[in-house]
Amino acid sequence: MSIDETLIAEYLSFAEELAEAAAAVIRPHFRAPLAVEDKGGNLFDPVTVADRDAERIMRTMIQKRYPDHGVFGEEEGRSGGRSPLTWVLDPIDGTRAFITGMPLWGTLIALNDGSRPVLGVMNQPFTGERFIGTPTSARLGTRPLRTRPCERLDEARLMCTTPEMFQTPAQRSAFDDLAARVRLRRFGGDCYAYCMLAAGHVDIVVEAALQPYDVQALIPIIEGAGGIITTWEGGDAQHGGAILACGDPALHPVCMEVLRGAA
Amino acid sequence: MSIDETLIAEYLSFAEELAEAAAAVIRPHFRAPLAVEDKGGNLFDPVTVADRDAERIMRTMIQKRYPDHGVFGEEEGRSGGRSPLTWVLDPIDGTRAFITGMPLWGTLIALNDGSRPVLGVMNQPFTGERFIGTPTSARLGTRPLRTRPCERLDEARLMCTTPEMFQTPAQRSAFDDLAARVRLRRFGGDCYAYCMLAAGHVDIVVEAALQPYDVQALIPIIEGAGGIITTWEGGDAQHGGAILACGDPALHPVCMEVLRGAA
Repeated sequence: MSIDETLIAEYLSFAEELAEAAAAVIRPHFRAPLAVEDKGGNLFDPVTVADRDAERIMRTMIQKRYPDHGVFGEEEGRSGGRSPLTWVLDPIDGTRAFITGMPLWGTLIALNDGSRPVLGVMNQPFTGERFIGTPTSARLGTRPLRTRPCERLDEARLMCTTPEMFQTPAQRSAFDDLAARVRLRRFGGDCYAYCMLAAGHVDIVVEAALQPYDVQALIPIIEGAGGIITTWEGGDAQHGGAILACGDPALHPVCMEVLRGAA
Repeated sequence: MSIDETLIAEYLSFAEELAEAAAAVIRPHFRAPLAVEDKGGNLFDPVTVADRDAERIMRTMIQKRYPDHGVFGEEEGRSGGRSPLTWVLDPIDGTRAFITGMPLWGTLIALNDGSRPVLGVMNQPFTGERFIGTPTSARLGTRPLRTRPCERLDEARLMCTTPEMFQTPAQRSAFDDLAARVRLRRFGGDCYAYCMLAAGHVDIVVEAALQPYDVQALIPIIEGAGGIITTWEGGDAQHGGAILACGDPALHPVCMEVLRGAA
């Protein structure tokens, strides 16, 4: 399914309404004492009241405005629609950032047309930043985003949320190998790191064990800014898993070569 | 030397003037393309134009207002005064955060009375946050800061800027041991992590290889909020080195026991 520009603009405007509604729910909980429960996954995965309530309000808005559209959210999973269009939601990406008070979490909202995400929003209400991507462009508020040229690993700035996300010794070893070759490494970025890649401050983000809702909103932001995001093997990033994003497309095969066979 | 409350208030007001002047110099460089050079230390240690210019303007202001006071800054080292009072400056703590676009760096300003830092300011101009500590209290803007109770390691949230800061296998091993026992680990905090500890969102910050100017401003902020900050052996934190901060003083000996002998 292909969507024309007018519809993209309409959906983007609605995505921004979703982001604002989610922010209104989430903001009062940021840096407030929270009841946090554990889903019982391998990683410590806190789910806050804010997370649940924000997804609920976004689902309600979507069902009211576009009853045919599907929804796929972190908290409540998939609910089908007759349309191939699906809203992919992560109310609070970066829950560890959230509960430690770091303003690096974000509300991720993507619209998938059945073959790929055609728009993405990352909203950070504490800093007041909204990163927006469509197939043709990306921006931070009204300012265009552009990745920076960086073809060489030894000049690159690499980010990764945490080394704990690598789930096999091969993944961790490949990551360590890549990280040893770059100019600067930094952990602790969540969705914010991908947006800084789109903005030209970071050259590589390499992560693993991502869910589709962790990554779909970021794809149009990165691609719209001139970057590239795939799996470690170069496959479609929208299904999650082990993900590699590069600001300079020329750097991407260099990174893939180091990561090869490890995903 | 003991300083009375009136003088503390005067010096704090001046420290805020320094923070504002530094912010005016630094802000235009944040997220702008920067010329970065390498000091050639063990870690990648970028020094930006903003860093140098911000220290220069603060030094000039101090020399004009308090010509007898000493200054100890990251960029230009120590310059003595006849007074035992010394301003301890780190214009951009968290240079890696700065150059990757993360709003977690800060301008650190401490006033040391010859025996200890008696006031501390951490200023983050992008988020508009100013953390302030004196021997009797700490605040974020006008809001009082208070650490949270957390006596148990298995309930604790631990932060550390990067595992690369541990300089010996013993340090790294002790860190890993401590990190394995806590509820939640997160890398990538710089001075911001200590401020989130003061604000009750983080329970432990454990780091190494800190310089005096990396830590002195944070001591009054943490102590004024009810926390404790020392070396791994429990010694005075103001000289830097391997540093342990805990929000709940009851958690501090528990952490020290794990880190014992490794600093």
